[in-house]
Amino acid sequence: MSWHATVLTLFPPMFPGPLGQSLAGRALAAGLWRLEVRDIRDAAKGRHRSVDDTPFGGGAGMVMRPDVLDTAIGSDDGRPLLYLTPRGQPLVQDRVRALAGGPGVRLLCGRYEGVDQRVLDARDAEEVSIGDYVLSGGELPALVLLDACIRLLPGVMGAEASAEEESFSAGLLEYPHYTRPAEWQGRSVPDVLLSGHHAAIAAWRRAQAEQATRLRRPDLWRARVDSAPAGP
Amino acid sequence: MSWHATVLTLFPPMFPGPLGQSLAGRALAAGLWRLEVRDIRDAAKGRHRSVDDTPFGGGAGMVMRPDVLDTAIGSDDGRPLLYLTPRGQPLVQDRVRALAGGPGVRLLCGRYEGVDQRVLDARDAEEVSIGDYVLSGGELPALVLLDACIRLLPGVMGAEASAEEESFSAGLLEYPHYTRPAEWQGRSVPDVLLSGHHAAIAAWRRAQAEQATRLRRPDLWRARVDSAPAGP
Repeated sequence: MSWHATVLTLFPPMFPGPLGQSLAGRALAAGLWRLEVRDIRDAAKGRHRSVDDTPFGGGAGMVMRPDVLDTAIGSDDGRPLLYLTPRGQPLVQDRVRALAGGPGVRLLCGRYEGVDQRVLDARDAEEVSIGDYVLSGGELPALVLLDACIRLLPGVMGAEASAEEESFSAGLLEYPHYTRPAEWQGRSVPDVLLSGHHAAIAAWRRAQAEQATRLRRPDLWRARVDSAPAGP
Repeated sequence: MSWHATVLTLFPPMFPGPLGQSLAGRALAAGLWRLEVRDIRDAAKGRHRSVDDTPFGGGAGMVMRPDVLDTAIGSDDGRPLLYLTPRGQPLVQDRVRALAGGPGVRLLCGRYEGVDQRVLDARDAEEVSIGDYVLSGGELPALVLLDACIRLLPGVMGAEASAEEESFSAGLLEYPHYTRPAEWQGRSVPDVLLSGHHAAIAAWRRAQAEQATRLRRPDLWRARVDSAPAGP
């Protein structure tokens, strides 16, 4: 039983798209995950004529109908149903890890003009946001969420992934990286990285990670300090 | 002169990918933006043998070489150079709006194991993160950033886009949406939306947006309160 992703969309040809190549594509070909893409329009072919209608209360844009979406979602099967929207909880690596550890996901890609709220309530959909910006639809967020999960599935990456994970889960940004040439355009690699002194390298990287987090992401830094055990 | 996006990647076939369809695809076909995709490997075909090498100081994964990336980036042309990385500043709608209002972007897609920091420093690259999760590469973040910008370009969307923008730029999550049928599975549309009373509808939507922001995104709510003018 491989990890099972179902995507509900008005644009089926967008999938697997970029996920058909590279890491995710090889994993798909190897059967480490499987993808089912459902065209929401198929649910509108019966008694319903269209997938969307004008919003009650007025305003620009169209809203996707609750009855059509409910039909498209179909029966529950234990996998979480996620709706990608800027109204949702921000996606974070902890949630990605939990989703990757489960049976799979069902992803509802709406238009950002909106989806009728009642179907989200009735089907207990988890509203998830990939960031504080506006996109033309939920398809790219679905691809992002899938890529984040797929790379964590057993067999997809090696020990590299776990190492990187641990760095991220410490609540810090990553330290900067350097490779050959050691001297480039008058810029040298930091001496400590050439020292061969493992403890000094680890300490330098830790200090760099902390400094980057403090300077670039005071929000993460504060959250980290707040959650640290109280000092003596 | 249409908005000009250049993408530097090891996976050129991933572009335009989903952006070849729907809104962005029609805009591309109409010449409202143009896309140039450069294969980073082409820059390694000269005196350099490979695009990456092991990290100085040890550790898992490979790091992309500064000399190869510098060649791939080429000469500056006034467009900002963005590197997509979880170490970057979080992408927000204000930055999207500014980028969409400029001449275009140059996007460097790295592998998240790393890019040599010296080329980012030397080329004054802006490090941008689309969210606090780890992906297999910078390609999906590049597609996300492009989609966010493209929908704001003149001629791509109509008045709908601007309306939505203003809602987002107020620092609030959107209010919930409802459409036909008015009654569905015993769930009614909120009465006020059927009242035809425009002021009451606007007030209800505002209250819903504020409540959603307070409950779901205390971080946004706090930032909003902090930036409000002081009371009498």
